[in-house]
Amino acid sequence: MKLITYKVNGYVRIGAFIDEDTIIDLNYAYQAQLQSEGKYRYREIAEAFVPPAMEAFLQGGKESLEIAKKATNFALEIPAYQHKLVYKKEEIKVEAPLNKPGKMICVGHNYREHILEMGRELPSHPVVFSKFANTIIGPEDDIPYYPLSEQLDYEAEFAFVVGKQARNVLEEDALDYVAGYTIVNDVTYRDIQRRTLQWLQGKAVDGSAPMGPWLVTSDELTDPSGLEMVLTVNGEERQRSNTKNLVFTVQKLVTFLSNLMTLEPGDIVLTGTPGGVGVARDPQVFLKDGDVVTIEVDRIGVLKNKVALQQGGDV
Amino acid sequence: MKLITYKVNGYVRIGAFIDEDTIIDLNYAYQAQLQSEGKYRYREIAEAFVPPAMEAFLQGGKESLEIAKKATNFALEIPAYQHKLVYKKEEIKVEAPLNKPGKMICVGHNYREHILEMGRELPSHPVVFSKFANTIIGPEDDIPYYPLSEQLDYEAEFAFVVGKQARNVLEEDALDYVAGYTIVNDVTYRDIQRRTLQWLQGKAVDGSAPMGPWLVTSDELTDPSGLEMVLTVNGEERQRSNTKNLVFTVQKLVTFLSNLMTLEPGDIVLTGTPGGVGVARDPQVFLKDGDVVTIEVDRIGVLKNKVALQQGGDV
Repeated sequence: MKLITYKVNGYVRIGAFIDEDTIIDLNYAYQAQLQSEGKYRYREIAEAFVPPAMEAFLQGGKESLEIAKKATNFALEIPAYQHKLVYKKEEIKVEAPLNKPGKMICVGHNYREHILEMGRELPSHPVVFSKFANTIIGPEDDIPYYPLSEQLDYEAEFAFVVGKQARNVLEEDALDYVAGYTIVNDVTYRDIQRRTLQWLQGKAVDGSAPMGPWLVTSDELTDPSGLEMVLTVNGEERQRSNTKNLVFTVQKLVTFLSNLMTLEPGDIVLTGTPGGVGVARDPQVFLKDGDVVTIEVDRIGVLKNKVALQQGGDV
Repeated sequence: MKLITYKVNGYVRIGAFIDEDTIIDLNYAYQAQLQSEGKYRYREIAEAFVPPAMEAFLQGGKESLEIAKKATNFALEIPAYQHKLVYKKEEIKVEAPLNKPGKMICVGHNYREHILEMGRELPSHPVVFSKFANTIIGPEDDIPYYPLSEQLDYEAEFAFVVGKQARNVLEEDALDYVAGYTIVNDVTYRDIQRRTLQWLQGKAVDGSAPMGPWLVTSDELTDPSGLEMVLTVNGEERQRSNTKNLVFTVQKLVTFLSNLMTLEPGDIVLTGTPGGVGVARDPQVFLKDGDVVTIEVDRIGVLKNKVALQQGGDV
């Protein structure tokens, strides 16, 4: 299932993306099904099990996902309902799948071929840092480029979202704790990242985490390895790798992180970026106003955003 | 005003701490006042302006704070109400003032005398990193010591909480964006912090941010400089400094951070720790099961927590 967060008529809600012509509103679909079953408290039951916000929906775990699937099938079969149940993609604005994750955990130095080509040794432990929710924008938003730096850079990342509370999880059980997968561009103000020991400040600027276009659930994408990932800028390829090259796989990251801290539904983990970022190229090349950055990951989809210089003007 | 989060009968609510015998429930106090004014919708109005959760209350800004003050005075004058309005400290459990801050931003290397005594130069920019909300525990909770490391360490920190949305704030206006001040112990698994380039993993363990005992509002504590801070372990002094020694003051941090990102009500910033942490002592000394760590900051109060080894046993 592809879980999407979308905006229509000023409301932000979640849906199932079936195809470009068929996006189902999950909460209303379930309300419709409950009404057809004669349930008086259809609104309250739907709010409890299929709330219209992604983080809340993920708290319902597999139970809510199963209910949402059935409701989707129900919605596809009925002609009309008091609320609109089916949208075309052109009728809605697609937002980032998550709006307020409790944690945004980022992994650095995690692509094997890139580490080896740099002549480094493979790390014994993941390097982890964070972003905050202020960085999240959707697949139809522009990447705001604040004139803080001349070194705006991209980082293609494959990301997973936690689906149930996780503490001290074994690797063999790890995927059971993953709700699904998406794409994030870990946009970085490179000189700001590097002016102190800790990277956070170059990673925390508003709008520096384009995310989407949707969450592919882990019952549909059962193996997060072997997915090709390509990033282009204005159509020119800049990064290419495959999730099979991750030093610390999704499973290892769930185990590692859940040994340190309790992971909660809606937490997102960005698994790291491969070689080819702008700062590491010869000559270096950074993003500029109007550039279009596109990340495509096999079986997930395409995340495409334009860079838009913000007021303040000259960089 | 001292804003406190407390638990009674299984409910977590906010109050005003007047003294050990007088803690006023703010939401009920305002309900009582509204009822006395003949307002039918007293519950809904109180929920809107003085919600019983701190982050939501802080979103109301100065308007909600003024209302809460008046309601507190009202509650002190009436004999009884349908809900209990006044508690003694012994009747309640004091929780961390914040439960789910949107951001927990930590500053490193920020005490002048400590940087100079180490022979380092003063930094040109603050070093910032983060913790997550899973780390927060209250002043009456034990610090869980998970057997992940033999190097559990303390860090006394003076912290400020954001009171209104802040973006590109000037230093002269900065304190207007601060809701109040509290104490945090930035508990650190030192070897885990240092095993990779980024510190987050040693800072993110569950329960590693004891916070409290309350939030002293910025209308009561108008100058965050010149506050003496002392940390003891089992009564033995280990850290002592004064907020006048901060390289980057509260004002400078509001300006610096709000230049990078939008700060929101309820975000908390830990301003850094002075010299004397366990890892930097000669000989090194780390926390162990049963140790009592006490941090006292002038005009704020005392945050005191015991270390409690968790199952898994041998460290």
